[in-house]
Amino acid sequence: MAAKVSIGVDIGGTNTEFGIVDGDGKVIERAMITTPKKDNINQFIDDLSTGIKRLVSKYSDFDYQGIGVGAPDGNFYKGTIEHASNLPFQGVIPFVSLLKERFPEMKKIALTNDANAAALGEMLYGGAKGMKNFIMITIGTGLGSGFVVNGELMYGSDGFAGELGHVTVTSEGRECGCGQFGHLETYCSATGMVRTAFELLSHHNATESLLANKSFNQTTSKDIFDAAKKGDEIALTVFEITGDILGQALADAVHISSPEAIFLFGGPVASGELLFKPVRESMESHLMPMFRGKVKVLPSRLRQGEAAILGASALVYK
Amino acid sequence: MAAKVSIGVDIGGTNTEFGIVDGDGKVIERAMITTPKKDNINQFIDDLSTGIKRLVSKYSDFDYQGIGVGAPDGNFYKGTIEHASNLPFQGVIPFVSLLKERFPEMKKIALTNDANAAALGEMLYGGAKGMKNFIMITIGTGLGSGFVVNGELMYGSDGFAGELGHVTVTSEGRECGCGQFGHLETYCSATGMVRTAFELLSHHNATESLLANKSFNQTTSKDIFDAAKKGDEIALTVFEITGDILGQALADAVHISSPEAIFLFGGPVASGELLFKPVRESMESHLMPMFRGKVKVLPSRLRQGEAAILGASALVYK
Repeated sequence: MAAKVSIGVDIGGTNTEFGIVDGDGKVIERAMITTPKKDNINQFIDDLSTGIKRLVSKYSDFDYQGIGVGAPDGNFYKGTIEHASNLPFQGVIPFVSLLKERFPEMKKIALTNDANAAALGEMLYGGAKGMKNFIMITIGTGLGSGFVVNGELMYGSDGFAGELGHVTVTSEGRECGCGQFGHLETYCSATGMVRTAFELLSHHNATESLLANKSFNQTTSKDIFDAAKKGDEIALTVFEITGDILGQALADAVHISSPEAIFLFGGPVASGELLFKPVRESMESHLMPMFRGKVKVLPSRLRQGEAAILGASALVYK
Repeated sequence: MAAKVSIGVDIGGTNTEFGIVDGDGKVIERAMITTPKKDNINQFIDDLSTGIKRLVSKYSDFDYQGIGVGAPDGNFYKGTIEHASNLPFQGVIPFVSLLKERFPEMKKIALTNDANAAALGEMLYGGAKGMKNFIMITIGTGLGSGFVVNGELMYGSDGFAGELGHVTVTSEGRECGCGQFGHLETYCSATGMVRTAFELLSHHNATESLLANKSFNQTTSKDIFDAAKKGDEIALTVFEITGDILGQALADAVHISSPEAIFLFGGPVASGELLFKPVRESMESHLMPMFRGKVKVLPSRLRQGEAAILGASALVYK
């Protein structure tokens, strides 16, 4: 009998990756196209379909279960991508419908946002195997989250649940991409860490810092990690502040949903204990007694380069 | 055929009420005993059981489906009441087991915390009929919450989910009963409103306020409502501040769970638009665009005096 596989598609702001994933979460082969810079959705769907068909024809022996798509601002209920701020497509894109026109033979085509996809990947193939209640946090340009409740993703009434990046951590705080102020992702994302670094540089007039010689646009969270490893005080303080604020927000999320574990995923997670230690300490210090010492904060077990495709492909089974 | 009914028990800090509830959410008859002041759990269970048996023998024609219990710090999974700060019982009380010993014939005996019970009541008999995703907020001495996700109560990994009252709204804020600081219920509860009133009295040295002539312990949220109706500025400001903070916390809860509606229940809810207007305005102002104008904030449709019994009785069916 033909082995059952699914196709995962990860639409990112720069590139769109896709691949064939087997039942054990092994990526058999993957490919990539450039996400367009301009709003030409039909061309993009055509290019993506051509790429997927090429892979499928190369592995024609498999039993294809479907295509799962992870995209920023993706809506699971409607199969749409809506007003995505990091994609060029305007308005509401009926992505699943457009893809179904190209793949009428596929048993299932589904779409969700990238953080929800990552949560599914963690549940099927990663560290959350067997867990019924956990939270996935994806830290990149922004901060995304997927809440798994009773073994199912929490989509809410309209498919948009899980926007932990937009809870308020400081009223009157930093300006957020969504137009509001003081939201979590303005502090606890790769971008937020850079903002914190530059706030600290200016506050302390820290001309001696390793971070004082690059522009705002050129500085990355990786630069902050590298500087921290060399003992740079500004960089070390960035991790303390980021961990403090993230830990407080995670405590709030625990009070609401009481998960077994929280998984962190994304570039800054590679910083290891520099990030996890202050996160855990802050979370514990904000928890009411009955939650203390119960909730694990763990790095994602999905490989950075494959997680998005794996997660998206998992959508076919959930 | 005998009509199916269930028994609801609401354990409060002062009184324990119980009653027979029919399938339409009508309380057929109810009774009350005093919740003991001292930790004598066996005496309490005996008294409660005697009271319930008296009701049952009076209505012996009914087909009893079970007993549902709502209690502070009640745990649905374990059927326990754990370290309840507003009850005299120390440690972990195996309440469901103790009750089963007295009612071996009952098909089902279940227990949850009072806010979860209220959420079930709203779903089966109140304004949340037919809703799959909503939040119930109970405002009393503290602030409790029950999250309904995909038509089911969210209990989390250990049965303690839904503690919205303990999310942090201001780090370094007011001291909370749980030992932490700045938690929501220190501001947005009947007690929190009195604390806000006294903070404002002291800040403005408001000797002319209608609230300036009663002690801290004697002042209630009802006094603040009465003073606000007479135009008292301190009282009006209490509602503004309470609404502001609650609205921000509700926006966070919306970002996480994307509910169809949020129901408010409890004494201060009787203040109507004085409370709801600033709550709605603040919530909307903190929401990211895709959630704005979507989430209804409504008063509970359960009658104040019956809600707890109704909610507890609903547990038998869920």
